[in-house]
Amino acid sequence: MKRHFDVAIVGGGIIGSSIAYYLAKEGISVLMLERDKVASGATSAAAGMLGAQAELEENDAFFRFAKESQTQYVSLNEELRKHSGVDIQLVNNGMYKVALTDNEAVSLKQMAAASIEMDWHSRDEVNFLEPHIANNIKGGLHIPSDGHVSPIHLCTAFSKSASLLGASLLEHTSVHAVERNSPSDYTVKTSAGDFHCQSVVITNGTWSGYFLNQLGLDNDIVPVKGECLSVTSREVYLSSTIFHNHCYVVPKGDGRFVVGATMVPDDWSMQPTVGGIHSLIEKIRPVFPKIDSCNFQESWAGLRPQTRDGRPYIGRHPSDENLYFATGHYRNGILLAPQTGILIRDLIMKKRIKSEYIEAFRVDRLLEVKA
Amino acid sequence: MKRHFDVAIVGGGIIGSSIAYYLAKEGISVLMLERDKVASGATSAAAGMLGAQAELEENDAFFRFAKESQTQYVSLNEELRKHSGVDIQLVNNGMYKVALTDNEAVSLKQMAAASIEMDWHSRDEVNFLEPHIANNIKGGLHIPSDGHVSPIHLCTAFSKSASLLGASLLEHTSVHAVERNSPSDYTVKTSAGDFHCQSVVITNGTWSGYFLNQLGLDNDIVPVKGECLSVTSREVYLSSTIFHNHCYVVPKGDGRFVVGATMVPDDWSMQPTVGGIHSLIEKIRPVFPKIDSCNFQESWAGLRPQTRDGRPYIGRHPSDENLYFATGHYRNGILLAPQTGILIRDLIMKKRIKSEYIEAFRVDRLLEVKA
Amino acid sequence: MKRHFDVAIVGGGIIGSSIAYYLAKEGISVLMLERDKVASGATSAAAGMLGAQAELEENDAFFRFAKESQTQYVSLNEELRKHSGVDIQLVNNGMYKVALTDNEAVSLKQMAAASIEMDWHSRDEVNFLEPHIANNIKGGLHIPSDGHVSPIHLCTAFSKSASLLGASLLEHTSVHAVERNSPSDYTVKTSAGDFHCQSVVITNGTWSGYFLNQLGLDNDIVPVKGECLSVTSREVYLSSTIFHNHCYVVPKGDGRFVVGATMVPDDWSMQPTVGGIHSLIEKIRPVFPKIDSCNFQESWAGLRPQTRDGRPYIGRHPSDENLYFATGHYRNGILLAPQTGILIRDLIMKKRIKSEYIEAFRVDRLLEVKA
Amino acid sequence: MKRHFDVAIVGGGIIGSSIAYYLAKEGISVLMLERDKVASGATSAAAGMLGAQAELEENDAFFRFAKESQTQYVSLNEELRKHSGVDIQLVNNGMYKVALTDNEAVSLKQMAAASIEMDWHSRDEVNFLEPHIANNIKGGLHIPSDGHVSPIHLCTAFSKSASLLGASLLEHTSVHAVERNSPSDYTVKTSAGDFHCQSVVITNGTWSGYFLNQLGLDNDIVPVKGECLSVTSREVYLSSTIFHNHCYVVPKGDGRFVVGATMVPDDWSMQPTVGGIHSLIEKIRPVFPKIDSCNFQESWAGLRPQTRDGRPYIGRHPSDENLYFATGHYRNGILLAPQTGILIRDLIMKKRIKSEYIEAFRVDRLLEVKA
Repeated sequence: MKRHFDVAIVGGGIIGSSIAYYLAKEGISVLMLERDKVASGATSAAAGMLGAQAELEENDAFFRFAKESQTQYVSLNEELRKHSGVDIQLVNNGMYKVALTDNEAVSLKQMAAASIEMDWHSRDEVNFLEPHIANNIKGGLHIPSDGHVSPIHLCTAFSKSASLLGASLLEHTSVHAVERNSPSDYTVKTSAGDFHCQSVVITNGTWSGYFLNQLGLDNDIVPVKGECLSVTSREVYLSSTIFHNHCYVVPKGDGRFVVGATMVPDDWSMQPTVGGIHSLIEKIRPVFPKIDSCNFQESWAGLRPQTRDGRPYIGRHPSDENLYFATGHYRNGILLAPQTGILIRDLIMKKRIKSEYIEAFRVDRLLEVKA
Repeated sequence: MKRHFDVAIVGGGIIGSSIAYYLAKEGISVLMLERDKVASGATSAAAGMLGAQAELEENDAFFRFAKESQTQYVSLNEELRKHSGVDIQLVNNGMYKVALTDNEAVSLKQMAAASIEMDWHSRDEVNFLEPHIANNIKGGLHIPSDGHVSPIHLCTAFSKSASLLGASLLEHTSVHAVERNSPSDYTVKTSAGDFHCQSVVITNGTWSGYFLNQLGLDNDIVPVKGECLSVTSREVYLSSTIFHNHCYVVPKGDGRFVVGATMVPDDWSMQPTVGGIHSLIEKIRPVFPKIDSCNFQESWAGLRPQTRDGRPYIGRHPSDENLYFATGHYRNGILLAPQTGILIRDLIMKKRIKSEYIEAFRVDRLLEVKA
Repeated sequence: MKRHFDVAIVGGGIIGSSIAYYLAKEGISVLMLERDKVASGATSAAAGMLGAQAELEENDAFFRFAKESQTQYVSLNEELRKHSGVDIQLVNNGMYKVALTDNEAVSLKQMAAASIEMDWHSRDEVNFLEPHIANNIKGGLHIPSDGHVSPIHLCTAFSKSASLLGASLLEHTSVHAVERNSPSDYTVKTSAGDFHCQSVVITNGTWSGYFLNQLGLDNDIVPVKGECLSVTSREVYLSSTIFHNHCYVVPKGDGRFVVGATMVPDDWSMQPTVGGIHSLIEKIRPVFPKIDSCNFQESWAGLRPQTRDGRPYIGRHPSDENLYFATGHYRNGILLAPQTGILIRDLIMKKRIKSEYIEAFRVDRLLEVKA
Repeated sequence: MKRHFDVAIVGGGIIGSSIAYYLAKEGISVLMLERDKVASGATSAAAGMLGAQAELEENDAFFRFAKESQTQYVSLNEELRKHSGVDIQLVNNGMYKVALTDNEAVSLKQMAAASIEMDWHSRDEVNFLEPHIANNIKGGLHIPSDGHVSPIHLCTAFSKSASLLGASLLEHTSVHAVERNSPSDYTVKTSAGDFHCQSVVITNGTWSGYFLNQLGLDNDIVPVKGECLSVTSREVYLSSTIFHNHCYVVPKGDGRFVVGATMVPDDWSMQPTVGGIHSLIEKIRPVFPKIDSCNFQESWAGLRPQTRDGRPYIGRHPSDENLYFATGHYRNGILLAPQTGILIRDLIMKKRIKSEYIEAFRVDRLLEVKA
């Protein structure tokens, strides 16, 4: 087994796989270590929305980073298919944030007014395009650019492309510790033995809090369990994603509607509960009453890694220049994956990076706040 | 392909498989025809309760037949294991019919008073044995003899035993018509060609109404769709089956709790709807509140064949002595399967049969009522 | 339940679903009857190759019909997505028919010479494009236009589009007989009761032989069981489909390679056997040795409906002008589905049709040969 | 979240679950930590044979320990059902070690001669009891006491019983380090934070090598991947397990035959390869030719933890009296689980233990050999 690499990536989810891909494309030798299978944690549980406007409501560096990542998908789609043969199932039919109350309508109209990319649609306009959205809504904010992909296909495409470009992927392997021998010589201690590398990137989401601490940082990463279900119907039609009160219905290209997601903080289990599924159905019915007649297909859950301010950590260790973190992407891992991969690649390759991104995502930003 | 048999059985569910087994054991040459896979319709969807007392509330011929069938399971368990190697997963931990209201309590106490096999337990007594049943119930009727089996294991055990004893099983084969050439010479017309036999038994449940009509009887069989779900939990314990308002929670020996079932008449679809699953959760919560914390595993549906009076048709065609029906078992197919197999075997072999059974289940009983 | 329709379609596989779609688009009222679920027989088992050149070796009416059908996919892809939201997973990366022996090479070179759409590639050329095809082959026939779709997605797209355009789809319903009352009044007798219509189309593949006979035709349809398996690998790359000796490896857009298919005549079972899977692995290894290192994912089987001359029956009953057949598509159901739907639609709507198609697929062609 | 426990168990497979059960039964407060789900690694992949005589060929301490563990199953079966409601699917139909060559026959006859529990059966005797074992074998060694259980049911039964008896089970939680603060005060550092306890038991199989090293021991644990497949058939009968050349066919009580297992050293992947499945079929065919007609159901793989001498480590850390290991059970984890749980419980509770067991399984036995 090869034991020396340029870069070791701890975690084989969507973030690790994206980084592996962008590094491998540059000819950098990469080892990606995953304790389970590639694409099995939060990645496999995500609905795959590319909801920059839906999820992020302020026009700040975080939002601009998200938009830039969203834009990557246009070319990435073809690029990953060429490398791996895998189709990431990109659908670009837009999204409706729906208002059920007058207050919600006011707030969404304000967002529409402030943006050139979003429009307020009256109830009739919404129902003209989407006849199966509830017809007692107050209207909806239309976001034409918010599409979605299949997270598992995306992660398979990234990781298979990386592998065919030369990256090594080791599954079912636990990383226990990262030891710094010198500024560009790390030992990664794993259940499959020690590996040696010049740089290390910690990308294992909910499970990365340990490494932040082990590497001297006092950050928290909290799991927020999200439960989802999928349904099908030959009589129900939906083109856009519906979004209301942090819940959504995503019409996937395979005919499923994915309904998500609950938010259960600090729960390490990864199975959906009956209570969670029940609450999800209750929340989605008012905006999508046709759900009652849809066939129940399956349900699942995942653990989203949340930081204290809801933004990811993407950047260098404050005192260790070859140690990187890319974690804490919470509900936005799929959306942010391409740009996160690019940012980490650029950091490792010492390329020029927008300073607002460095500032927005740096790992020690909350440590200062704390002090 | 062999084309001549003593008996052809139309339908490879639990009823057909039981009949095939009891006939093959007697050395009778049997062909069982199934349009899908063996054990795929109502059989695969059933929870497997052997609830003679729970489901049937009068001490009549139907009840006595059900009790006799329930009793068969004691020896059948070992017998089928010996023949096929398959364990039918018999569990005999009893059942609680639970009272949530005073009225329900009165009614269940009366049933207890009228029976030597059932007892009324106070709330404290119920919760002593079953701490996870709701502790605001009024009490429960305890039925120690009502156990359960795994329907798929049972059907596999019957059909594999029949096969090893010489029966022929043909799956994915549609039966289109049964033609009588002479009193003991039938042609069964199928998608796989014609088969010839001396007797025919129609056992294809919801789909048997057509044959009743095709063979000159004006009976109805109506599908009543039942939706179920299964859940698991390491923190929740249940030894007895809970039964309330036609819904139940069955603690299976593999660690699952099976929760069922809705009743949707005249629906030919076999997939559970979101609305059905939602209603099931709502109904079971008051008696089993711990369900909220259980892990949602999966959901499914099946079509139970219902006759107008809720009892099965088990017997001869009124004017065709070698043509038999064994269908319409509604919610009681698993419970009644052994004794149905025995009754049909005895009819075919011209053995002596209790006249009350002949009377209770004869095929033309509702035709007379109608006239 | 609605009981009168313009057209009743017997069978809800890919052929029935395509016809339902093309009719519903014209505003014709359609009932599609399926004994199992839509898309469950040969449809769900197919690999989805659109292999006009690969499967058909003569430039005759059958071939031209196949090419026309293949061409439909270009626009159908977008059209079905618009109607149903479902993506049929069209991939157009071409196919290699590989030569392992000198004889095979000679034969494939002749085909290349005779066609403007196909080229002979030397071993080095093949391995340059497809490094994981065996490097001891003699070369390969390159067919750039032979792509593939996902049969289940395609059937879902057709049937959901038909449903949203007004067609009625009834699953889990057996059709037992088609009775002609007058030239444009049929009763379709089913397990869910009688339905009345002006035209009937028989499309239930392997199970349609019965209806040919019931409707007075002496044709045979024989099931030819095909077993397949799917594998995955992050280290193995394939862009084109590989085809050799009736077996193939299809690189699907979800990252799976589908390997098929055995040919077991007159077997009505639908489960793959160990012997079948073993033989498939043995056959595919010489052309795709990397298969040994791929992960075994799953295996399955389906029944292809074969006529005596290997061509489908698509046309009118010889003496019954409103009774149609569209069955017997053998290995080519997915390829031929669009044009079959169009041809039946045109027949029903009395549109002009190429006479060579009428001749090539007419239902009584083999009856004459027989006489 | 509770943070202090008497004992922390690292690993939630069959060994960890057995220990948790035996400790919880004594009222000891237990935390079991599992990085994936309980019962997911080697446990879920095992066939569940209780093959003391089949696997172990010398009458030494290891064999006696195995026999003692095998004997536990008689009472454990009922005991776990009472605690958890889960049936471990114990089947006790014996095993045949089959001889295909004269040399194998000689060797098996010698084993029969040396044992009062095993008999040599001629080919005719074997085929009389097991007509579907190949009829060109030289005979077989009959081991009536070697039965089997369902590993997943067993692990569910142990872990659910432990949970209901008060143990805490934390899934999807990585243990990164075990730190000793004082002789009876350990900190277990995990992805879910730190836990404190008086004793620690390392039971995470293939992944425990890291902890042996981290805790100062130079032992190796090597993964040996095992691939399996399951098949079904209504025409094929098998009562006993067949064993030949490290491969086996186990007739499970649910009607499946489980066929295993390959041995691929030092492979950390957990998916079966096509090459592995192919070799397994090739190996099992000569002794069980009927396998060709069986239906292929599914395949899977697991990683067995192997020590250098093939025996488990069950005992104390040589210099740390409250630190225990129970790992390296290789092909015998299910067989040895009960007695391993009992041995660790007795060590922790300072009960009297057979010195030959302490000697046979002590953790530093191979370190001395090395020196």
